[in-house]
Amino acid sequence: MLTDKGVILVEGVNRGDLILEPLTRKIYIELGEPSLNDNQADVDRLVAALRKILGPVTVPLTVMRRVPGVLLEAGWRVTVTLGEEASGTLILMDLEPGNTTNRHYGLAVDIGTTTVVVYLVNMQNGQIMGTAADYNGQIFFGEDILTRIYLGSTPDGLEQLQRAILDTLNKLIKQLIKKHNVEAREISAVAVGANTTMVHLFLGLDPSRICKAPYIPTVNSPGIIPAGQLGLQINPLAPVYCLPSVGSYVGGDVVAGVLVSGLHLSPELSLFVDIGTNGEIIMGNRDWLVGCAGAAGPALEGGVAKNGMRAEPGAVDSVRIDPDTGKVYYTTIDGVPPVGICGSGLVDCLAELLLAGIIDRSGRFKDGRDRFVVVPAEESATGQDIVITQADINNLLRTKGAVNAALELLLESVGCDLSDIERFYVAGGFGQYLHLESAITIGLYPDLPRDRMVRLGNSSGEGARLVLLSKQKRVEAEEIARNITYFELNASQAFMNKFVGSMFLPHTNLDYFPTVKEKLIQRGLLYPNSSVT
Amino acid sequence: MLTDKGVILVEGVNRGDLILEPLTRKIYIELGEPSLNDNQADVDRLVAALRKILGPVTVPLTVMRRVPGVLLEAGWRVTVTLGEEASGTLILMDLEPGNTTNRHYGLAVDIGTTTVVVYLVNMQNGQIMGTAADYNGQIFFGEDILTRIYLGSTPDGLEQLQRAILDTLNKLIKQLIKKHNVEAREISAVAVGANTTMVHLFLGLDPSRICKAPYIPTVNSPGIIPAGQLGLQINPLAPVYCLPSVGSYVGGDVVAGVLVSGLHLSPELSLFVDIGTNGEIIMGNRDWLVGCAGAAGPALEGGVAKNGMRAEPGAVDSVRIDPDTGKVYYTTIDGVPPVGICGSGLVDCLAELLLAGIIDRSGRFKDGRDRFVVVPAEESATGQDIVITQADINNLLRTKGAVNAALELLLESVGCDLSDIERFYVAGGFGQYLHLESAITIGLYPDLPRDRMVRLGNSSGEGARLVLLSKQKRVEAEEIARNITYFELNASQAFMNKFVGSMFLPHTNLDYFPTVKEKLIQRGLLYPNSSVT
Repeated sequence: MLTDKGVILVEGVNRGDLILEPLTRKIYIELGEPSLNDNQADVDRLVAALRKILGPVTVPLTVMRRVPGVLLEAGWRVTVTLGEEASGTLILMDLEPGNTTNRHYGLAVDIGTTTVVVYLVNMQNGQIMGTAADYNGQIFFGEDILTRIYLGSTPDGLEQLQRAILDTLNKLIKQLIKKHNVEAREISAVAVGANTTMVHLFLGLDPSRICKAPYIPTVNSPGIIPAGQLGLQINPLAPVYCLPSVGSYVGGDVVAGVLVSGLHLSPELSLFVDIGTNGEIIMGNRDWLVGCAGAAGPALEGGVAKNGMRAEPGAVDSVRIDPDTGKVYYTTIDGVPPVGICGSGLVDCLAELLLAGIIDRSGRFKDGRDRFVVVPAEESATGQDIVITQADINNLLRTKGAVNAALELLLESVGCDLSDIERFYVAGGFGQYLHLESAITIGLYPDLPRDRMVRLGNSSGEGARLVLLSKQKRVEAEEIARNITYFELNASQAFMNKFVGSMFLPHTNLDYFPTVKEKLIQRGLLYPNSSVT
Repeated sequence: MLTDKGVILVEGVNRGDLILEPLTRKIYIELGEPSLNDNQADVDRLVAALRKILGPVTVPLTVMRRVPGVLLEAGWRVTVTLGEEASGTLILMDLEPGNTTNRHYGLAVDIGTTTVVVYLVNMQNGQIMGTAADYNGQIFFGEDILTRIYLGSTPDGLEQLQRAILDTLNKLIKQLIKKHNVEAREISAVAVGANTTMVHLFLGLDPSRICKAPYIPTVNSPGIIPAGQLGLQINPLAPVYCLPSVGSYVGGDVVAGVLVSGLHLSPELSLFVDIGTNGEIIMGNRDWLVGCAGAAGPALEGGVAKNGMRAEPGAVDSVRIDPDTGKVYYTTIDGVPPVGICGSGLVDCLAELLLAGIIDRSGRFKDGRDRFVVVPAEESATGQDIVITQADINNLLRTKGAVNAALELLLESVGCDLSDIERFYVAGGFGQYLHLESAITIGLYPDLPRDRMVRLGNSSGEGARLVLLSKQKRVEAEEIARNITYFELNASQAFMNKFVGSMFLPHTNLDYFPTVKEKLIQRGLLYPNSSVT
């Protein structure tokens, strides 16, 4: 089980105050009592009163049925909950006796391929009341996204996967509402940040063409869908808004990240990177946005490296190697005996192996061995050595190479240089825990002045919170999705060329990584003025 | 079983040509095929193309799921069916491969308390393709409307009554689509004319307060409801539009009638009367409209008079009494041996009994008997005399008295005189078959020049057809419902006074009925210059 520490926006991002204009609103209203001289029908009376304040309001049949009873019970003093239809028209979602405007709840949801996080949000003040997280129940059917796309291409498989994510979400929702004394039907809105495939599987849409040229999703902007149509156990009329995708490989989670970073509003050239199963890169400023997604490969996810594992208790999450003695110092999550190595541990390993001179800049063990023992058998929880192998290293190199190549391609396409980048935003839970210096040492992150680098934490969830609470942010999100010029790397020979050329640590051209070059020189691993070993 | 002869608009109403703008439309569209250079998502591609022609379009999840498959199958050449949400926004209801714009069907429905008529309409040209009719399945639970309101006041009873009318409708729809080779999902729109109680029971809304002061319905303008939410077995997204009601006792059937008559567009002062279970009267012109509903009582419906029956085969539907011999001449529906007397037969009886001098102007048998044999036992199918009793006559008098009183009250309220009325519209199946002269003789209809009198036939069904086909007519219907000033007779002492004073045949003041007065004088039943017997 994951802890429920929801990592939301942390360091250094400067957002203005959020103007609260949530996906739904609650309004207390006092109606005149009907009489022989004022015999307007109940629903018409309510609609007319609301129209005066808000304009036209639609009343669904299920709510219409409840109107007379609630009005009579409440003495014509009621609180209405209003949502928006896909078209933007107001819809009467709920009616409660008396004034209940202080109980107004929504959910911000991050559906990751691996992890799902649900934030219970008080929509009256925008605050997060509680967080619940768990693995995506779809993991049972396959850890990687391609397996799920393949399974989701059959109607039965699609139904299984949709049910799995709904079960996960409903379980988390149940935990949250129980803990915070909220009733399910008091949750009147949901915003979702997720990649394109996750959105398809959540909505029960065929994902099969996402991974086949020309890579066409069923939908990028699904708009607003009532919760009841999906099977979310909250108010069945609650609008569920999925952040729009740019394309098959740049999803609503990335749009959320850009939204949270604010780079789309800034005059400065900024870079946004989310490295997970895929690596997504967005570059731009308030005038233009370009983006691409590399099949970064799941080298950093649990279960790929020989002793790789998810960031769970017992995972080696940081590693240091003494360059003189070769002794390994490590820490594990929750300090329990080591079981395996998670992503941040792997990146640390690679960086430290390079800096200790154990591997060369092409990633090969200098002494010809095929593995390095990080944790000896006698210290591990498994009774086996915990190792990083040559194959693991090669995988990591491919991942970082894909990110390098994509970034270079984007820079070239807009005629910019790495040094032009004034902000570098790192998204995702992985980005949150990765050690910055190690990531730079292996060349996964660019070697920029450190004060330009900002971690966004779970920007997919935070982006969902923003669009849950703010109409302005929804407009911005739609604009971001529409305005990103997407480069399809799957079809690019230039990408393949750059990819092959970037399989060195930290990079073929060391001048791109001045601080790493300096470190290597200090450690005697590189002669000054040489740029290739 | 009823025949499926749908009586729709017949004599004398002058409507302009109907501009076809149906509740739904079908459009054939050819989309560009996706490629690496044009990798818009399927749904977004379709929505963008439609937006160019029509503005924003909402795609429900159920349709979204079908989009990729249909587009691929059809080579990006498809026909879309578009409806309107309650708010007026376009909604993508269906998607078919190729060009199917010539198959575009809707239903105009008249839900009467007794009878239900469904018209299958070709929405491409506005023509009625077929008609199916049957008794309202709710009759099983009670013939009169008060019994149904009472039953519908409990959740179980309401569900039973809703299921009954839905079963009736689904049965009729099934008959029609089978006969005319239409698929259920090709029916994309429904318009309904019905009284306020019937609309409530159809939608599953609590009718209990319709019959309790201050007579508040749940809703008068239910707007548009998707067929699937009701359980109509057609396209589940088909908009179901119920003509709006004015109040508890002036329903969408009456608004339909006014719409069909066109009196709301004319400078002439017109009167609209619908006599069934209730008697509804609307008066006005293009500048103003007033209306009321009298508890006319069900004297004219089957099952109330001793030998009363519905207008089925074997019902005595016309009667003449030879004033000299007292011999009775009658006809029956379908010419089969008589079983009972239907409404038009009862009105004929009353008129002929008066003109033959058998009853006096207060409705009493002059010779003190308590019944009159219309059909002797040896001619009847039942082997019993078929009679009209003093109690039947008293009931009929109350009905016509209620209509008289309501009409006088309306005229007084607007300062008009009977002779100011330039058009008199008679609505309803009953109005269609009633003999005009008999209705005037007993004072049920005003004694106006006969060329001012127009029968509208099933104006509830025809009104439904108009709003199914024309947006302009929907706007007019909403305006009619909004603009009718309703007089609540249940609360009026003036009405009771007039009611008591109008229990003479044809009326206390014979000068209101000049042609009847003339007839009575000719037959020696009245002396010239006397106005009261």
